[in-house]
Amino acid sequence: MSTVINVPPGLRNVVVTATTLGDVRGDEGFYHYREYSAIDLAKSKTLEDVWYLMFEGHLPTAVERDKFVAELAPLRVLPEEVRAVLPAIAAAGPTFNPLAGLRTALSLLAAVRSLPPLWDADPVRRKADAMLVCAVTPTILAALYRLREGQEPLEPRADLTAAANWLYLVTGAEPSAVQATAIEHYLVATVDHGFNASTFTARVIASTGADVVAAIAGAIGAFSGPLHGGAPDRALASLDEIRTPDRIDSWVREKVSAGDRIMGFGHAVYRTEDPRSLMLRDIARGLGGDLVDFATTVEQRIVDVLAELKPGRNLYANVEFYAGVVMELCGIPRAMFTPTFAVSRVIGWSANILEQSTDPKIIRPAATYTGPQPPVPVP
Amino acid sequence: MSTVINVPPGLRNVVVTATTLGDVRGDEGFYHYREYSAIDLAKSKTLEDVWYLMFEGHLPTAVERDKFVAELAPLRVLPEEVRAVLPAIAAAGPTFNPLAGLRTALSLLAAVRSLPPLWDADPVRRKADAMLVCAVTPTILAALYRLREGQEPLEPRADLTAAANWLYLVTGAEPSAVQATAIEHYLVATVDHGFNASTFTARVIASTGADVVAAIAGAIGAFSGPLHGGAPDRALASLDEIRTPDRIDSWVREKVSAGDRIMGFGHAVYRTEDPRSLMLRDIARGLGGDLVDFATTVEQRIVDVLAELKPGRNLYANVEFYAGVVMELCGIPRAMFTPTFAVSRVIGWSANILEQSTDPKIIRPAATYTGPQPPVPVP
Repeated sequence: MSTVINVPPGLRNVVVTATTLGDVRGDEGFYHYREYSAIDLAKSKTLEDVWYLMFEGHLPTAVERDKFVAELAPLRVLPEEVRAVLPAIAAAGPTFNPLAGLRTALSLLAAVRSLPPLWDADPVRRKADAMLVCAVTPTILAALYRLREGQEPLEPRADLTAAANWLYLVTGAEPSAVQATAIEHYLVATVDHGFNASTFTARVIASTGADVVAAIAGAIGAFSGPLHGGAPDRALASLDEIRTPDRIDSWVREKVSAGDRIMGFGHAVYRTEDPRSLMLRDIARGLGGDLVDFATTVEQRIVDVLAELKPGRNLYANVEFYAGVVMELCGIPRAMFTPTFAVSRVIGWSANILEQSTDPKIIRPAATYTGPQPPVPVP
Repeated sequence: MSTVINVPPGLRNVVVTATTLGDVRGDEGFYHYREYSAIDLAKSKTLEDVWYLMFEGHLPTAVERDKFVAELAPLRVLPEEVRAVLPAIAAAGPTFNPLAGLRTALSLLAAVRSLPPLWDADPVRRKADAMLVCAVTPTILAALYRLREGQEPLEPRADLTAAANWLYLVTGAEPSAVQATAIEHYLVATVDHGFNASTFTARVIASTGADVVAAIAGAIGAFSGPLHGGAPDRALASLDEIRTPDRIDSWVREKVSAGDRIMGFGHAVYRTEDPRSLMLRDIARGLGGDLVDFATTVEQRIVDVLAELKPGRNLYANVEFYAGVVMELCGIPRAMFTPTFAVSRVIGWSANILEQSTDPKIIRPAATYTGPQPPVPVP
């Protein structure tokens, strides 16, 4: 091998490519999609607006939005060949695994629709395939959940926004305006977030020229990893474990002394409070109730104890912590917390795949061999 | 973002991690598994021997080999829940896509067997899950092919080696000793090959702590990319296009002047002849026949014309070129050429996943944002 370049473990801060999709400024507690603050977008735009922004590079005009929404509606409906296999996918295994189920169903969809490699497809076809995957993802996830629960899947509703449709498909009831708005804010705020492991996975696969689903299936796999940090149900499970305010301190100290991670706290990039967490805390407070009061008490106390036990680490609540609270208050069952995250993030992955597909260079790094020197004669 | 480190496009020569699995020395035309020349292993060892070497770090003793082979036999048999869905997977889409089918079936298997995240699993469980995936991959691929052809899948044969069993499952006939040896050499020679995009994908996903299938499903996606270069049928298709020796020159010159890649020639790392190609050419000559004579004539002439048209690029036949010839002569249908590659490479991916799972560091690089400067007020 010619010149090798050594970089920090885990490629930390190593710039793999250029992007116009957005960035995370970890020291400032700020992240953006295109040229807009992601939090400002979350507070004022629909998921469809931001989806369009990520795919097209600009926010839609009213006409563009209507056209986009009209195009989306039929894409939400599952092809019959995939629908027929969903009961078997939903029933698979002793525990329900919606992300594995989504990956299985999308993988089948790729074959059903005969998706061309990105390398062979023109930009219009690439975008159409990505649109399909993003549109059908909520339908698949909600159908798997309902099938696992012994209920019939519901048909997507063209008269509802993407956010309201998601709540409807999962809960079976049309959400209140307050709930739909809360979840819409959450979905917009979690569309994209820098070069995390799942986004990077999607881009590595896309760099080979493979099809959109090949890249999304890989991203789902990375997203399912416990170290990736996309599981709002874990943070809520912590609240259940703690139960009462007087138990917070002992719970944190035991966890830390056992070397366990405190789920919902700390982030790979942020050295400040997580801007998503701040927004979600406000939303949770708006929804109100005992759970919110308890969660804010727990949050503050955990931050204080972590500051004492791990000085200089700047560990704050991350997106997981209040996301769980908000989803619980919007009636989403816990099994569907992480899938809700996937409903928005699949749009970010897709935008990254579309961007990567314009670069004809495969991503292929190197490793240093550190075993015994070859060649040793084969015995 | 703090200090950023700029590296060459595509992470070329960027060292991501250390490995004791092997390496490729592109300037020497040499690659190795552990401390042994991979070509020497291919010429003298079974696929099971090398599988054991990659998983355990040393070649098996006779006792260890017998135990390993005995453990493999039941793992080749498909769980009923996956078998039941295979006809729907095989039938999906207007064109047969065995890699998408494999990804779908393995993804379902992960849920059926409730695979734990690598992060939660002990080393014994991780290895058992990887063994299962590698053992069942040929069964799935062959079953999909036969179902698509309207034939019943065959049961794996415990009395056959992994290589002979593969030929039997695909062709329906017990292979000759010469054919089984030829394919065994090919399979051993393609188990692993440095940090290519699919292997890297598997390691990125594994670094999140996700389960073995999450990482393998991603690797299959990257492997399916046209730029990855694992499609021996493309090289054989070139031979079909060329048809007669007098048409070689014009065919190459037309391709090159159109800016097309010549499939089966050139490699991301080798600047010499590809050692796999050299071995496979010898194997093809041993099998003999008109196709081999024609292929060697085409190979030599393409190398000469490319040397003239692209001086200094050192473009030689890569692993794809003679792999296609060897597989054709062993009776493997063309749709199953790339799947045959996957049968061995899944072992290399798995060894990489097991190695990565001992490193608790997530792989998470960065990108440079190059769009308009935020924050622009949201309209």
